[in-house]
Amino acid sequence: DMEALSKDFDDLSEDFKNFATTHKDYSTRLEELVKLQGKCMKELSHQRYRMGIIRKSMKKVEKNPQNRDAVKEVEKKMKQRKVQLYEMEQALPKANGLYLKVILGNVNVSILNKDDKFKYKDEYEKFKFIINGIALFISIINIFMNSRVLDLLFMFLLVWYYCTLTIRESILRVNGSRVKGWWLTHHFISTVLSGVLLIWPNNVVYYSFRKQFMWFNVYISFVQFLQFRYQRGCLYRLRALGERHNMDITIEGFHSWMWRGLSFLLPFLFLGYAFQLYNAYTLYQLSYHREATWQVPVLSAMFFVVFLGNTLTTMMVIPQKLKE
Amino acid sequence: DMEALSKDFDDLSEDFKNFATTHKDYSTRLEELVKLQGKCMKELSHQRYRMGIIRKSMKKVEKNPQNRDAVKEVEKKMKQRKVQLYEMEQALPKANGLYLKVILGNVNVSILNKDDKFKYKDEYEKFKFIINGIALFISIINIFMNSRVLDLLFMFLLVWYYCTLTIRESILRVNGSRVKGWWLTHHFISTVLSGVLLIWPNNVVYYSFRKQFMWFNVYISFVQFLQFRYQRGCLYRLRALGERHNMDITIEGFHSWMWRGLSFLLPFLFLGYAFQLYNAYTLYQLSYHREATWQVPVLSAMFFVVFLGNTLTTMMVIPQKLKE
Ligand SMILES: CC(C)(COP(=O)(O)OP(=O)(O)OC[C@H]1O[C@@H](n2cnc3c(N)ncnc32)[C@H](O)[C@@H]1OP(=O)(O)O)[C@@H](O)C(=O)NCCC(=O)NCCS
Ligand SMILES: CC(C)(COP(=O)(O)OP(=O)(O)OC[C@H]1O[C@@H](n2cnc3c(N)ncnc32)[C@H](O)[C@@H]1OP(=O)(O)O)[C@@H](O)C(=O)NCCC(=O)NCCS
Repeated sequence: DMEALSKDFDDLSEDFKNFATTHKDYSTRLEELVKLQGKCMKELSHQRYRMGIIRKSMKKVEKNPQNRDAVKEVEKKMKQRKVQLYEMEQALPKANGLYLKVILGNVNVSILNKDDKFKYKDEYEKFKFIINGIALFISIINIFMNSRVLDLLFMFLLVWYYCTLTIRESILRVNGSRVKGWWLTHHFISTVLSGVLLIWPNNVVYYSFRKQFMWFNVYISFVQFLQFRYQRGCLYRLRALGERHNMDITIEGFHSWMWRGLSFLLPFLFLGYAFQLYNAYTLYQLSYHREATWQVPVLSAMFFVVFLGNTLTTMMVIPQKLKE
Repeated sequence: DMEALSKDFDDLSEDFKNFATTHKDYSTRLEELVKLQGKCMKELSHQRYRMGIIRKSMKKVEKNPQNRDAVKEVEKKMKQRKVQLYEMEQALPKANGLYLKVILGNVNVSILNKDDKFKYKDEYEKFKFIINGIALFISIINIFMNSRVLDLLFMFLLVWYYCTLTIRESILRVNGSRVKGWWLTHHFISTVLSGVLLIWPNNVVYYSFRKQFMWFNVYISFVQFLQFRYQRGCLYRLRALGERHNMDITIEGFHSWMWRGLSFLLPFLFLGYAFQLYNAYTLYQLSYHREATWQVPVLSAMFFVVFLGNTLTTMMVIPQKLKE
């Protein structure tokens, strides 16, 4: 009845008052925190700026062999400091790069908490895994069937997938991931490549390449699954390393695991790159076909660039990992 | 020399220690704040949940005419409470919708500060303005020239633009914007529509529609500029209303300005919708052409849906604004 209802509402109003107080407290603290955040960010860039200056003068002082030991000492400390600053930066918001600014605008996508960062990366890997599964499924069907609509759907999926990857990876980068610039460029080129495939008129030249392309996709999906296993293994092991100070998993243990994973993965990767080169070659030959449209040489060039970039970047990873 | 360098580094290390203290303080406060945030969010949803229950029992109590006045009283208070809760929600993070979850993943895009929200919206309007200018420029060239590459570039731009809009508008929605679901759907359909235009083979049917389509784009760009003026006017006036408690701009003043703006804009909008209907009609007729591909009826249907949705939504805005 009405009385009970009024009483209910009054009770709720009482609760609301408490909530309003909590909220007020929260708002004040939030404002303070933002100020403190700004201060930290300023100090961080100040530290970096001055370290840059010191590094420069170090270059000069270094020339005197008498100073060599002292310089080495400072250098070592600087390296440590750099790591510390990087760690501290992880709890501070970071500005978006140009690409994110254009797509998302100036919204803050920083994740300030290690656990959430991990979850975000993990989710990103899972996202790739799922879309890869779908792509594998469609490309297998496409090998046995020949439907223009399914072809287009597949290429739409690729455009969308690679486009989404560039966004997510830019977000990962804002959040401290060291993913190499090439992989972002790679996904960007792949977006355009899939777009060009999409508008390629389906004439005889297209059909000369179609089967090979679908096999290529099947192979790439397969490799991506291997890569998923490896990347996810790295992610979980690195997290365990960071969390457990009792070192259940030692750095050495991680490194030996990583090398095993990597040496298993690398042959498959390079075979994939060879396939990309082969695509470029096939398309190059087809570009002399009577009915070849502009898409054919453009696709050939793009496959070649992708082959080159992938091969060089992956080859460079090896000596870099040996140094660590 | 070396001594100065060492001294520099030691000074910097001193600064670093202070910084580390500040950072530590910051991290602690951040953690506390996140907890408090969680508490506020819980209380908020608790309030909403209980208000829902009260609303339900109100429906029953209402039937007794004796209670009418008391119910009205509670109803009024509930409305106020709803507004208060909405205001309080603006300072709390909000989960992403499904669309953002798929594209961006589970990264937090909430803007917790009114000023930043305003800036974000303002930037979004400017973004539309700029891309519109580019689209207008290209479509005018396209009327006088006929280059397949420029056509494709234009349609790529449209796909990209509408896709980006859906993302940005989803972010705006997370941040409390009341943009109607239809406009998001509209941009989503427009993305697909532009994608279909992109893969439409350029045969004679395409060329029968091309000129009309380019004029349509010129007109739409023009309308978008008018819309930009209106939306931006609303944005700045609403901000002034919210900020100045001395009410330089009164609500009445705002409403009269809004109505003038709206009545100027509406005829142009409806003319645009008529143009969309005309596009649908032309494409419908063309779909009987001998060389018509599947893209023609699909585009026709999509233009019709867009026409329908736009007309209905815009017509519904008017009585809604009258009620306010
Ligand atoms: C060679 C390879 C296995 C090395 O992986 P790795 O051991 O993680 O390499 P790095 O140590 O340089 O990784 C640095 C960061 O970049 C990320 N990363 C590496 N390669 C990536 C890729 N191809 N895409 C996205 N992110 C990548 C890592 O996850 C890591 O992220 P973190 O800083 O957040 O932890 C990996 O780069 C790879 O799989 N490349 C092949 C991809 C490819 O060729 N695909 C095309 C189709 S075959
Ligand atoms: C009819 C119209 C002028 C009303 O605008 P309005 O007065 O801002 O309408 P509302 O009060 O319903 O707006 C609510 C919110 O939605 C936003 N919004 C309204 N129409 C929008 C649109 N078409 N796109 C994006 N956002 C829109 C407003 O900015 C406002 O945002 P806020 O909550 O952050 O302040 C506007 O909806 C409009 O311009 N529609 C036509 C768009 C169109 O037809 N384009 C297609 C090509 S012609």
